[in-house]
Amino acid sequence: MLKVEHIGIAVKDLEQSNGLFEKLFGRVHYKIEEVASEHVNTSFFSIGETKIELLQATHPDSPIAKFIEKKGEGLHHIAYEVADIHAEMRRLEEEGFTLLNKEPKKGADNKLICFLHPKTTNGVLIELCQEIR
Amino acid sequence: MLKVEHIGIAVKDLEQSNGLFEKLFGRVHYKIEEVASEHVNTSFFSIGETKIELLQATHPDSPIAKFIEKKGEGLHHIAYEVADIHAEMRRLEEEGFTLLNKEPKKGADNKLICFLHPKTTNGVLIELCQEIR
Repeated sequence: MLKVEHIGIAVKDLEQSNGLFEKLFGRVHYKIEEVASEHVNTSFFSIGETKIELLQATHPDSPIAKFIEKKGEGLHHIAYEVADIHAEMRRLEEEGFTLLNKEPKKGADNKLICFLHPKTTNGVLIELCQEIR
Repeated sequence: MLKVEHIGIAVKDLEQSNGLFEKLFGRVHYKIEEVASEHVNTSFFSIGETKIELLQATHPDSPIAKFIEKKGEGLHHIAYEVADIHAEMRRLEEEGFTLLNKEPKKGADNKLICFLHPKTTNGVLIELCQEIR
């Protein structure tokens, strides 16, 4: 794993949270992107080599809506950049981690992604991601 | 804010979680440190410019013990490195954020630290930290 590519934060109101995180970081978000397949609207801030991704549900069935219902707003997942997502998925499955998708899927920000089930990772939802070239 | 200095993860059993995160990251933790003032034992992994800090309570009154009781194991806080923690604390207080300590205190890993109350930061416990020179 090369770096913490981004940290995902579940929010109820993206516009309001953009304002809040702009004050916190002293800088504005640089992008808004809807990921229709995940039923989320996202915005991105950049801090060093890591992005902060705010996630708002666009549908009650969105994983983000369910997360907020259960746990409230807050830290949702950590995404690690990997050099070869297929190789890393195979390695982690062999190590006993549970992959939430068997093939990489298209995520926000031009990435191939795969999530690991938090039951096998100390309650932390982990995303692997690799830039699509 | 310069970078994501570390991400704190609350765990029940540090030894067991060290083994789990070693498999996940494909590398071993580089340090164990007890922070007596916070009643925690910590271990650190390095990924790019960010550290992953596993936190285990050493006392039932530890904030980590209370967090796990309420929310279970998982993502606990994000720490941002700042150039001047006193200036950043003043700036954030003026912006309406609630500081959990009014003066920087000594944290793990040779740092001055200050936490922001998650009620003012979308449910995210945020730590500011500055290396002690």
